[in-house]
Amino acid sequence: MEAGGRFSKGAMVYEGKAKRLYQVEGRSDLIWQEFKDSLTAFNAQKKGNFANKGALNREISSLLFQELEKNGVHTHRVADISATEEVTKKLEMVKLELVVRNVLAGSTAKKFGIEEGTPLERPLVEFYYKDDALADPFVSDDQAIMIKAAKSLAELDELKVFALKVNATLLPVMRSAGLQLVDFKIEAGRDTTGVLHLADEISPDCCRLWDLKTGEKMDKDRFRRDLGGVEEAYREVCERLKKALLK
Amino acid sequence: MEAGGRFSKGAMVYEGKAKRLYQVEGRSDLIWQEFKDSLTAFNAQKKGNFANKGALNREISSLLFQELEKNGVHTHRVADISATEEVTKKLEMVKLELVVRNVLAGSTAKKFGIEEGTPLERPLVEFYYKDDALADPFVSDDQAIMIKAAKSLAELDELKVFALKVNATLLPVMRSAGLQLVDFKIEAGRDTTGVLHLADEISPDCCRLWDLKTGEKMDKDRFRRDLGGVEEAYREVCERLKKALLK
Repeated sequence: MEAGGRFSKGAMVYEGKAKRLYQVEGRSDLIWQEFKDSLTAFNAQKKGNFANKGALNREISSLLFQELEKNGVHTHRVADISATEEVTKKLEMVKLELVVRNVLAGSTAKKFGIEEGTPLERPLVEFYYKDDALADPFVSDDQAIMIKAAKSLAELDELKVFALKVNATLLPVMRSAGLQLVDFKIEAGRDTTGVLHLADEISPDCCRLWDLKTGEKMDKDRFRRDLGGVEEAYREVCERLKKALLK
Repeated sequence: MEAGGRFSKGAMVYEGKAKRLYQVEGRSDLIWQEFKDSLTAFNAQKKGNFANKGALNREISSLLFQELEKNGVHTHRVADISATEEVTKKLEMVKLELVVRNVLAGSTAKKFGIEEGTPLERPLVEFYYKDDALADPFVSDDQAIMIKAAKSLAELDELKVFALKVNATLLPVMRSAGLQLVDFKIEAGRDTTGVLHLADEISPDCCRLWDLKTGEKMDKDRFRRDLGGVEEAYREVCERLKKALLK
């Protein structure tokens, strides 16, 4: 990690559902990433927010990215700036979201008529084509190549191995925090030498986390399904991860 | 082909959207298949029918299956019985529909925001999980294995090669009949020795066929999209294929 003080925020280049991205003055290889307090679901048809959500997600994500780096996963981290801001490497983003499922839940459980909570024999990796206007459609490997989101089956296999490595690292981390890692979505990009890096974030916005003892949902499903206690759940996940990882 | 006269129709075992299946008396290795005049679309939410549709589809399918056999594709054909009936091998059916696309059309064109009629650089094979109650969902290779519709990626590759062989055989056949083979769906099954066979049917019900000169739709899209002239299109496809193949 570099010291954050020496970077200056430039012009905004992109505003997404949960983050704003800015240039870093004089550094075309970096991006300034700001976490917002807004929450969206169902392709942004449902909207909400709570105070400190951006800060909580950045703290959780930062803890997990550091743990992943310790375990050999390259990430985009460069410098912490503030509670909601960080400077990251600017990467050539892969045009696929990578989803890993350990337990069936949500739309995929419904798609196959399988009860939510059914554990999978082995983790399942899915690809979703990153295109907001098309609502990020689920794609097969051959479709991903057809739309040129990947060059080859070998590249897709590289992405699967990458996603499974992240999963294998996160599973015991979450378990040590009393959480079952049901599924999660990550994004990845390549640096100028082509090396795959974890980008974006890992937070309760893009993971399903169930309390190991009670089965209680500790993630964005509380917002999606109007279960209440959204902020409390995010805060609890953050506190538990700090206790598990910063001892 | 065996002579049809020596088979006796047994009890009905299954009625689908376009066919009825019966036992063959004293022959547990065979199935009696009857083509119906009904037409359905959008997972059977839209229903229709026309006289002789079953006979036309069986004639088209029979012509194409014979041509595929000449080109080394195993099919379930055993004996012709009547205009709408045939006796086929009873196979262990693969729980996936195999779709091959040469040109983007319909829901897949829409999914990717690509204009209908865009040719693909190479044929695309897609798998759909055969389950009426779940509306035959599109699945990735890894999902197909997860739900045990296939045992391995090697088996899925075998299915892809099989589907592409059918496509490579049908493309020039359709072209010789003045038709562009846009896409099609087939079903496959294994005999007792595990050999993959083409089953079900190949007809304008499960292909997109466009007139090579005018681009006019000559398939079930005329019914799906209320274009009229459904019966005429099916009849024309049948006549053109007879002229091209029975000379």
